[in-house]
Amino acid sequence: MKQNKDKIVSLGEIMLRLTPPDYTRIEQATSFIANYGGGEANVIVSLSHLGHNCYYITRLPPNQLGDGAIDYLKSHGINTDNIARGSSIMGIYFLESGFGGRPGRVIYNRKHSAFTRITPEEFNLDKIFKDATWFHISGITLALGEKAREMVFACLKYAKKYQVKVSFDFNYRSKLWPIEEAQKIYPLIMPYVNILFASPWDIRTVLKTGKNLTDDDKLMQHAIKKYDLEWIFGKTRKIFSSTENAMTAYVYGPNNLYFSTEEYNFQIFDRIGAGDAFASGVIHGLLTKPKDPKFAAEFGIVNSILKQTIFGDVATFKEEEILEYMSTQGRSEVKR
Amino acid sequence: MKQNKDKIVSLGEIMLRLTPPDYTRIEQATSFIANYGGGEANVIVSLSHLGHNCYYITRLPPNQLGDGAIDYLKSHGINTDNIARGSSIMGIYFLESGFGGRPGRVIYNRKHSAFTRITPEEFNLDKIFKDATWFHISGITLALGEKAREMVFACLKYAKKYQVKVSFDFNYRSKLWPIEEAQKIYPLIMPYVNILFASPWDIRTVLKTGKNLTDDDKLMQHAIKKYDLEWIFGKTRKIFSSTENAMTAYVYGPNNLYFSTEEYNFQIFDRIGAGDAFASGVIHGLLTKPKDPKFAAEFGIVNSILKQTIFGDVATFKEEEILEYMSTQGRSEVKR
Amino acid sequence: MKQNKDKIVSLGEIMLRLTPPDYTRIEQATSFIANYGGGEANVIVSLSHLGHNCYYITRLPPNQLGDGAIDYLKSHGINTDNIARGSSIMGIYFLESGFGGRPGRVIYNRKHSAFTRITPEEFNLDKIFKDATWFHISGITLALGEKAREMVFACLKYAKKYQVKVSFDFNYRSKLWPIEEAQKIYPLIMPYVNILFASPWDIRTVLKTGKNLTDDDKLMQHAIKKYDLEWIFGKTRKIFSSTENAMTAYVYGPNNLYFSTEEYNFQIFDRIGAGDAFASGVIHGLLTKPKDPKFAAEFGIVNSILKQTIFGDVATFKEEEILEYMSTQGRSEVKR
Amino acid sequence: MKQNKDKIVSLGEIMLRLTPPDYTRIEQATSFIANYGGGEANVIVSLSHLGHNCYYITRLPPNQLGDGAIDYLKSHGINTDNIARGSSIMGIYFLESGFGGRPGRVIYNRKHSAFTRITPEEFNLDKIFKDATWFHISGITLALGEKAREMVFACLKYAKKYQVKVSFDFNYRSKLWPIEEAQKIYPLIMPYVNILFASPWDIRTVLKTGKNLTDDDKLMQHAIKKYDLEWIFGKTRKIFSSTENAMTAYVYGPNNLYFSTEEYNFQIFDRIGAGDAFASGVIHGLLTKPKDPKFAAEFGIVNSILKQTIFGDVATFKEEEILEYMSTQGRSEVKR
Amino acid sequence: MKQNKDKIVSLGEIMLRLTPPDYTRIEQATSFIANYGGGEANVIVSLSHLGHNCYYITRLPPNQLGDGAIDYLKSHGINTDNIARGSSIMGIYFLESGFGGRPGRVIYNRKHSAFTRITPEEFNLDKIFKDATWFHISGITLALGEKAREMVFACLKYAKKYQVKVSFDFNYRSKLWPIEEAQKIYPLIMPYVNILFASPWDIRTVLKTGKNLTDDDKLMQHAIKKYDLEWIFGKTRKIFSSTENAMTAYVYGPNNLYFSTEEYNFQIFDRIGAGDAFASGVIHGLLTKPKDPKFAAEFGIVNSILKQTIFGDVATFKEEEILEYMSTQGRSEVKR
Amino acid sequence: MKQNKDKIVSLGEIMLRLTPPDYTRIEQATSFIANYGGGEANVIVSLSHLGHNCYYITRLPPNQLGDGAIDYLKSHGINTDNIARGSSIMGIYFLESGFGGRPGRVIYNRKHSAFTRITPEEFNLDKIFKDATWFHISGITLALGEKAREMVFACLKYAKKYQVKVSFDFNYRSKLWPIEEAQKIYPLIMPYVNILFASPWDIRTVLKTGKNLTDDDKLMQHAIKKYDLEWIFGKTRKIFSSTENAMTAYVYGPNNLYFSTEEYNFQIFDRIGAGDAFASGVIHGLLTKPKDPKFAAEFGIVNSILKQTIFGDVATFKEEEILEYMSTQGRSEVKR
Repeated sequence: MKQNKDKIVSLGEIMLRLTPPDYTRIEQATSFIANYGGGEANVIVSLSHLGHNCYYITRLPPNQLGDGAIDYLKSHGINTDNIARGSSIMGIYFLESGFGGRPGRVIYNRKHSAFTRITPEEFNLDKIFKDATWFHISGITLALGEKAREMVFACLKYAKKYQVKVSFDFNYRSKLWPIEEAQKIYPLIMPYVNILFASPWDIRTVLKTGKNLTDDDKLMQHAIKKYDLEWIFGKTRKIFSSTENAMTAYVYGPNNLYFSTEEYNFQIFDRIGAGDAFASGVIHGLLTKPKDPKFAAEFGIVNSILKQTIFGDVATFKEEEILEYMSTQGRSEVKR
Repeated sequence: MKQNKDKIVSLGEIMLRLTPPDYTRIEQATSFIANYGGGEANVIVSLSHLGHNCYYITRLPPNQLGDGAIDYLKSHGINTDNIARGSSIMGIYFLESGFGGRPGRVIYNRKHSAFTRITPEEFNLDKIFKDATWFHISGITLALGEKAREMVFACLKYAKKYQVKVSFDFNYRSKLWPIEEAQKIYPLIMPYVNILFASPWDIRTVLKTGKNLTDDDKLMQHAIKKYDLEWIFGKTRKIFSSTENAMTAYVYGPNNLYFSTEEYNFQIFDRIGAGDAFASGVIHGLLTKPKDPKFAAEFGIVNSILKQTIFGDVATFKEEEILEYMSTQGRSEVKR
Repeated sequence: MKQNKDKIVSLGEIMLRLTPPDYTRIEQATSFIANYGGGEANVIVSLSHLGHNCYYITRLPPNQLGDGAIDYLKSHGINTDNIARGSSIMGIYFLESGFGGRPGRVIYNRKHSAFTRITPEEFNLDKIFKDATWFHISGITLALGEKAREMVFACLKYAKKYQVKVSFDFNYRSKLWPIEEAQKIYPLIMPYVNILFASPWDIRTVLKTGKNLTDDDKLMQHAIKKYDLEWIFGKTRKIFSSTENAMTAYVYGPNNLYFSTEEYNFQIFDRIGAGDAFASGVIHGLLTKPKDPKFAAEFGIVNSILKQTIFGDVATFKEEEILEYMSTQGRSEVKR
Repeated sequence: MKQNKDKIVSLGEIMLRLTPPDYTRIEQATSFIANYGGGEANVIVSLSHLGHNCYYITRLPPNQLGDGAIDYLKSHGINTDNIARGSSIMGIYFLESGFGGRPGRVIYNRKHSAFTRITPEEFNLDKIFKDATWFHISGITLALGEKAREMVFACLKYAKKYQVKVSFDFNYRSKLWPIEEAQKIYPLIMPYVNILFASPWDIRTVLKTGKNLTDDDKLMQHAIKKYDLEWIFGKTRKIFSSTENAMTAYVYGPNNLYFSTEEYNFQIFDRIGAGDAFASGVIHGLLTKPKDPKFAAEFGIVNSILKQTIFGDVATFKEEEILEYMSTQGRSEVKR
Repeated sequence: MKQNKDKIVSLGEIMLRLTPPDYTRIEQATSFIANYGGGEANVIVSLSHLGHNCYYITRLPPNQLGDGAIDYLKSHGINTDNIARGSSIMGIYFLESGFGGRPGRVIYNRKHSAFTRITPEEFNLDKIFKDATWFHISGITLALGEKAREMVFACLKYAKKYQVKVSFDFNYRSKLWPIEEAQKIYPLIMPYVNILFASPWDIRTVLKTGKNLTDDDKLMQHAIKKYDLEWIFGKTRKIFSSTENAMTAYVYGPNNLYFSTEEYNFQIFDRIGAGDAFASGVIHGLLTKPKDPKFAAEFGIVNSILKQTIFGDVATFKEEEILEYMSTQGRSEVKR
Repeated sequence: MKQNKDKIVSLGEIMLRLTPPDYTRIEQATSFIANYGGGEANVIVSLSHLGHNCYYITRLPPNQLGDGAIDYLKSHGINTDNIARGSSIMGIYFLESGFGGRPGRVIYNRKHSAFTRITPEEFNLDKIFKDATWFHISGITLALGEKAREMVFACLKYAKKYQVKVSFDFNYRSKLWPIEEAQKIYPLIMPYVNILFASPWDIRTVLKTGKNLTDDDKLMQHAIKKYDLEWIFGKTRKIFSSTENAMTAYVYGPNNLYFSTEEYNFQIFDRIGAGDAFASGVIHGLLTKPKDPKFAAEFGIVNSILKQTIFGDVATFKEEEILEYMSTQGRSEVKR
């Protein structure tokens, strides 16, 4: 029953996420809901639900917490043959869900985690990338220390060797590392990237290029040219409250191509993973209709909006659900 | 302390409903909230809370699941003396609650259920209908197979014999049977019906009458006349998201009587049973003020809106709560 | 690490609050979430989170329910050395959360509670008030019977003796006592009050003063003068549904001072304790910037809005959270 | 489908019971499981599950807590036409489940409850007792004050008038009233009693009769004669831990009849209601096999043991389940 | 990181299991815990945790319930490429956990399920069995109707073709089919079987062979010879209560080989799946030490005992945990 | 109402403990119950419930997880003025509860936690110890690295300076540090210790003294003399299963004093913190009856047994509960 599908590879940490139920504040929680998540893991899981053949490279402690993360990936159909085990610390993050005018909050308990000790020697990268179609990474992994960065570059070299398409999500997080350090690393990544997820702010402030281009459109076109990118995708968000937002997606491409979707108003059940769902939606769009970046942007934004209607870090929607939303504008009656 | 009250009878299946908590999707559920429901059961339960003397005719498996359904009906004050027991299958349905732009979903696991084997011989219908005031049925029971339909007609004959008023809720569900089959059965029901719950679409497409009447009002008047109906009630719904809707109720009567309520905007906690609560509200309105179909329509729409603010299939509101909503437009402070 | 802080004292009942989870109606609840609350207790707990040195005077049954209330106060940093124990009845209230057009409901099970037997002899009031800065009470305690009122007046005398500032929240509740009785007691309190929380209705109907002043502003100015008050604070609320409201705060002061905040629209997770959070926010504002009643009103209204985004009776926000909301209008991204 | 069954009537309070889940201590509970219970209510509910036609006389507050208690009784098939409503206080009790060497604990919050204001004038006692077969009461109701006692005697007079058999469960609770007071009331009840549930201690200390009879058997025979009783039933309990006990039932009858069951060892999930389940088992035994007190004692002890394997105050077992336990000694494989 | 492992294949239904939490009875359940299970699925899941390469053949409805079952199998590392989808009914079973003297109960809601429509044409059986090491089936699948039986025999033919070892667990369930029918089918299976899980009762009553052999040992030896079996494994169980049992495993082999383990006393958290865990433990034992049936019997009984200490249908223990139990007799301190 | 009480000080980490509910295994948990615990924190919390004036010195991250730990300590009446804040990592441990023959498991996620960065400079140790009566520490803190050890010795010097009694619980944990390292540190602690909690194995293997004394009694006497100890307390444990154990306490003192309690059999709800509850029970016993080490040993063992009947790390029993258990041997009826 299985067909030939694209082999998509990603690399990154996967953490245990602990969320107090029912909008309880963290310091008053008497229990936590447990699931697993992490930027790149979220992207790959959504792509698996969209029908692709997905592989995740990571490193986890050799205990039951690590086992749990692997079982989680497996349950979503991810190939877990390339997961190293070692060190004692599981990356954990705590999420306090926002409500109304009260913002959500994330507390990281991930420093010194097993992933930060990852090395290329633990993996058969040649075998992993040989028959791959796509490789996705994000700026979060770059922030996780020297070893994590070495691993990223090792993978990128194999991706290049086998002409695997590379997508990179900027995801600069000031809580994880100072901008000065990021400014040194991000430019080194760019030569490997085909598809970029970034905002004008990212280009201007982190890549520090085109600084004199005050017009965003020109800046993005400049980046396309300078780094020989296929497309840059991004989205803007308006916040009315923790539970009501609006989003718009855009895409830039060579020859001044530019497209932006309409502005979508939507309700939020769980904010986390919205950007990752956007990335996986876009990647799926590009794999399905490679010549139609508009479709990819629309598909990405809807995958992201739907993600925010369910609990947890990941979008688990099938293609047909996303297409239906696109045709009904999310105004469907109960299906019965 | 008990007064003389109207005896209202209904017939239909009652299913176990299983809902994943906290907007979880069905395939990821690790638990389900259990309650019981079914179109006609929901109507009769609400009528019991509105103070009537209610009887439910059904058939359930002779096991603890059947016992649970009976205890549930009893707890709402329903007379359960006329419940046959037999066959091994409990009708079950799964409900995934929608959120924002994600629609709700129902999965039926009810084929071959105990109810589908119901026969008139299992009941003393003469005794049931002899002193009854009202009999309510819906199109869902018609869809549950040959035996269910035979049972409906057996009851209708007794209702006619004892001049019991009959209300019928169209409730055509394409998931349960093809329209071609329905088109044969629905017209046979109409001669027995006094109060109809239906939309112009129902009249035009299922009853296949007045097809050349493009004006809805004329179509409804045509149906009133053709089937000698007292009233036709209905409601229209606008969907902004799974959690925000607007509804308007209307009523048609002989001599071109027509009334429609204002449009109510409201928030949804649980969408299921809205139509059933509308029917029970209308029936209560008509029993209370038989000459005032406007009141019935208003009472019905508010019972329906309030239903959607609580979990489960049924409206459990008392008359005073509905009247209060009608006077405050649902803008009350906390009662303390 | 502890600094010198204001010592704030309050007196009142603290009850066990029982709330059915997930918007369930009380009569159908199979479980209740337990927390503790009561008007004055809520005020003092919020003030403790805002950094003050807080003392609560109350009376509780000498059993595990009383112990639980004390542990609760302790966990919020309240000094519990002045809690008498006696009588067998714990004050309890049940809260049914409203949703959409369905209002919330409170059922009191508090008559004859341990608190209603409180006497000044059980406490060393001289020691309590000697070094206090502020004393807060509310009209709820006045409604709890003869002994409760005697206790209030005993405390007020000590407050006067030691020049402790007194704030009084009107909180007239018709469910607890008839207005005729209240009209006799409230005026006796006024000579002790410095800061009043009240509406024009309160002044006009409960204090029965300035009855011929139809203009609210003039009425409030009249009350300021008559009772030699520093300020009167209040707020108005518009109800769109049980989950969406708007509020505006106002303050009146001598010499025709008047200020009102903008109107804030907000979403409600738990309505209870909104007025108490307003009071504690205002008190904190006045303690921080004694000359700036505008700041106090703004701080109070935001503390109140934030309160309504969390479960339970009390606002547990730190000053920085409230200030952030004031600067972002409650439109913050998730903090990560 | 309904057959002619014995009409059994009982009178007593029904309280809301609140139990912290998972063996949590009361003062640390963040939630409580809610069910309803009370000595006589427990007896009548079990008798309903054993197939009898059951009526409960009580008084409840006219609010949702009272409604909940009534829905609970209805769900167990109890006739609730004879329930007066009035006063604001719902009787509540808190149960902390014992574990191992830690004993369970009950905290009553029931003083001044609606039931304590009950009066015969609120009921049509003649109608209730006219066609009744059995009336069951217990010493708990006697402890609830003057009005409760008056109500008991009013009922007993009607029971006598219509030759309704009367069973009385001693249930003396020192926490509810002093023994001196009980010693005055209990003897007044005895002339009405046919079946007594009591221990030698009860006879000797509360009834204060046969004090010089040091032999228990002779004491019980003395009581049988003195009060012209049909039978006295009782049970003894050995406590190994909160979760492991042993029980033995005995019965005394005229002409030196004496029988005791074997000693049953059993595990306890919920200790509460064990005595009530014993009483209902015995009553059912006597109604089924009036000449076989041994069967009644066995049936009662097994109903009591099974009760202690389920949560809540009441035994909901059917006759066949009890008979099966009696034949297998509670050593059955999973039924599949 | 993956090594060459045995490929084990199994065939059977997988059902949604619904269990009321906290020992609640089914008819009173307000929620159910959801997991998935089924005799053969349980065996294959445990074997996956013991390190084998596991494939499951089944048929599920093409809806979210079917998806959930597949995700469940995936999360345990099972290959799910051979799962047909069709028909609307998900097999469901309800489990009421026993406690003390109250037995557990199973209610099946599985008739007409998607699995009962399975056909060999839906699968590429040649590919499945070509490189397989072991095939496990049980008598439950034989009971699920004509099509299920055809599927079993189709698989057995491929197993024979490719010399795949076949184990068969008797599992005769009288609730699913009459013994007369079973007696016709079971003998047809035997020629394909290498390893049998059966009791003397099974041999004598279902296979109806060796009926004149009253000695169990001789009967088992007779079966070994008649059907040319490698081994027959089985276990006996003593029931002290629903939560305390004892078990002993035995094995019979050619040349009068016989071995039985010591009797293990143990506590039960969840009884279901004990037999399946025994089978998977034995299979793992035989795959690990093919010449040591004693080891297999010990390993199987301990896997079964450990299964009964966790919730759900399946043993998820690793080899090291089972070996540790074998060396400590299950008397280990907390591991920290 | 507060009396003069002993001031007891302790130092150590306090961690967030996460336990899957209902005996779920860690890798399959979908939620965790949250509480706080740590060896010394557990001791001090129990002492607070036994009526003492308790202070805890620790270091926590300056985020909501740290706040939660402090609120927890406050709710148990612990003075939290001496808690430093810094570093980002909260010590966390996961507990899998054992059942029957399946042992419990602890996974530490505590390396690099905020506590491991503690320094004496962050505290006013002089003020803390000046008026203290007792100081309790344990070997766990010694295992947490160089800085933790420096902090221990800094405290011990102040304890010596102000003649504060010092108790030390050996608690050697091989998972936290190698024995070779421990063997260097433990002897350095001994000169400061008055009351020791240790086993003969601890003395022989960790302190490496009296190695040629094969008789345990002589070894303990040797240690008493060598280190000039007041008493050595300890307990032995027999494990029948994860839920049934037996324990015996012993005490050694100067002049060959030796006492051991009877062996207590008991049931376990939560094994963690048993040793800490023993220590706090002994300390309370010694503070209450300084000349009666037998009483202290009995009191300690019962506090430990009762601890194991409740969830969480800490014993929250009052003196009267422990005394009652001592007099009834834990065989009390439900208290009502």
